[in-house]
Amino acid sequence: MPLTNQRFLLASRPQGPATRENFDLVEDPAPEPQDGQALVAVEYLSLDPAMRGWMNEARSYVPPVGIGEVMRAGAVGRVVESRNAQLAEGEHVAGMFGMQRYALTDGRGVQRIDPALAPMPTWLGALGMPGMTAYFGLLEVGRPVEGDTVVVSGAAGAVGGLVGQIAKIKGARVIGIAGGPEKCATVVDELGFDACIDYKAGDVARGLREHCPKGIDVYFDNVGGEILEACLARLALHARVVICGAISQYNATEPPKLGNYLSLLVNRASMTGIIVFDWADRYAEGGRQMVQWLAEGRITAREDVVEGFETFPETLQMLFSGQNNGKLVLKV
Amino acid sequence: MPLTNQRFLLASRPQGPATRENFDLVEDPAPEPQDGQALVAVEYLSLDPAMRGWMNEARSYVPPVGIGEVMRAGAVGRVVESRNAQLAEGEHVAGMFGMQRYALTDGRGVQRIDPALAPMPTWLGALGMPGMTAYFGLLEVGRPVEGDTVVVSGAAGAVGGLVGQIAKIKGARVIGIAGGPEKCATVVDELGFDACIDYKAGDVARGLREHCPKGIDVYFDNVGGEILEACLARLALHARVVICGAISQYNATEPPKLGNYLSLLVNRASMTGIIVFDWADRYAEGGRQMVQWLAEGRITAREDVVEGFETFPETLQMLFSGQNNGKLVLKV
Repeated sequence: MPLTNQRFLLASRPQGPATRENFDLVEDPAPEPQDGQALVAVEYLSLDPAMRGWMNEARSYVPPVGIGEVMRAGAVGRVVESRNAQLAEGEHVAGMFGMQRYALTDGRGVQRIDPALAPMPTWLGALGMPGMTAYFGLLEVGRPVEGDTVVVSGAAGAVGGLVGQIAKIKGARVIGIAGGPEKCATVVDELGFDACIDYKAGDVARGLREHCPKGIDVYFDNVGGEILEACLARLALHARVVICGAISQYNATEPPKLGNYLSLLVNRASMTGIIVFDWADRYAEGGRQMVQWLAEGRITAREDVVEGFETFPETLQMLFSGQNNGKLVLKV
Repeated sequence: MPLTNQRFLLASRPQGPATRENFDLVEDPAPEPQDGQALVAVEYLSLDPAMRGWMNEARSYVPPVGIGEVMRAGAVGRVVESRNAQLAEGEHVAGMFGMQRYALTDGRGVQRIDPALAPMPTWLGALGMPGMTAYFGLLEVGRPVEGDTVVVSGAAGAVGGLVGQIAKIKGARVIGIAGGPEKCATVVDELGFDACIDYKAGDVARGLREHCPKGIDVYFDNVGGEILEACLARLALHARVVICGAISQYNATEPPKLGNYLSLLVNRASMTGIIVFDWADRYAEGGRQMVQWLAEGRITAREDVVEGFETFPETLQMLFSGQNNGKLVLKV
């Protein structure tokens, strides 16, 4: 009996938030692997802020998802049928399998993963793209040294939570910024940040003055907008600002305008954009270190797993309304 | 007979452009050097965009000029009386002597200069702060390599003209941005830039598309505002943006808002503020190289010398209306 596939195809380019109307959910038989191919049964799908950008037509670091194409998504799953010499049936793999229940692969860009080392969803979080983003973005561009004050926005999110924990390992004082008292409590109590500023409670600038009396040495930005502006106003001399994302802006229909950029001049500071793919040739190194820190209990991996493949459009929206706590994963 | 001094004291903090009303021009006898001091007769004064910022009360990389204090200014002059063992009468010196005809110094921060190597005004330009700013800012932060496309705004100005010439020496294609056909002709014909975009003639973005078909690898920004935004929109992968100044913004009463900063993310580019003082321990190295390039005719030094100490407030304004062509110097 043929397997039944379900796939979310991009039907139209969203203006503002992506909704169910922007996708076609189609059902058809799972494809048969040809020579060199394998069929993967997707088990968990990664939901990422970057997905919103991939739906836009604008030139970016990867081509936009085409209209009528399967929505791009990272995922982990199991090989269920293989005519590829490198991929055995039953093996667990990670790759850009797309927003679908079954995916064909020729093995390119596919990584074998070991569920004995960490649960499957963790391979989409601390041991996946968010982990590599946090590891290389912080250490290669933020370059915190012992005693530095590191500020991280989106501190309860997939990348931010890891950035702060790695900065702690490197001896920094770490201040998170997150939305709401629950998230802030998690960030301090579970992730070990020194403090967390609740941006929903009001004055981020005042929180920064209180918690960063000597200014900010490293600001790891996942959100953009007013929080980035407040942090720029508080930079220390020779500060490094890492621009990892701008979730507050992805649904905006007007391009963002950034205030306080001249703080870079006054403080001889830098602001650098990062895309994790640039460290692809070093993922193995980053992965080994993250596995070790997880095993030693020095890094806590947190995933927010939502069940139901069909809920994709609504579940994605949790990222933008700030409802997720940790790496957002969709269980198929 | 005592020498008569004239000094411009900051009388009030300007809102918008600085005018004569913001200064008191006072006349009094030149001071007598005490033990360890020397008296310098100022011959040429440096007029710099940064001076406008020094008049503001806001925290910056140097303290603001206090109300009632002599306006801060770089200058070159001659020692006319000395009770300092390091400074002989008749020697030529450069230093932050302030907007006055005679200055007392204890020798700290004072550099001996040789008028045989280059005319006195050049010690305020290519061999002074603008030269060091261009040299270290471009080479240490912009880091152009052969074949790179380097874009320089304020290309007819003190720093910009030197940045482009140094970039040419390093094998880059260099595109200037300047105001008006005369300046653009100077930038191409006298300074050897490959092209120059006249921002007053209209569409900077179109000029950048035409002259930077592969994008901008290094953008050296002296002006900020819309020109910076247009350049950000045209960055190449891994571009370096050097924020040296923002002359379009210094008289603004509202803080600037920067569009297109997310181009840093898409292109994994960096934007870094520079202040020349950070390379103070390497001025000797930069100075030797600039003297050599001048002697070899590979760098053209251009000063716009205006006569008349008393004209300071109006002459300073030339920088902001774009009337100067080359390093603006006031002859006492």
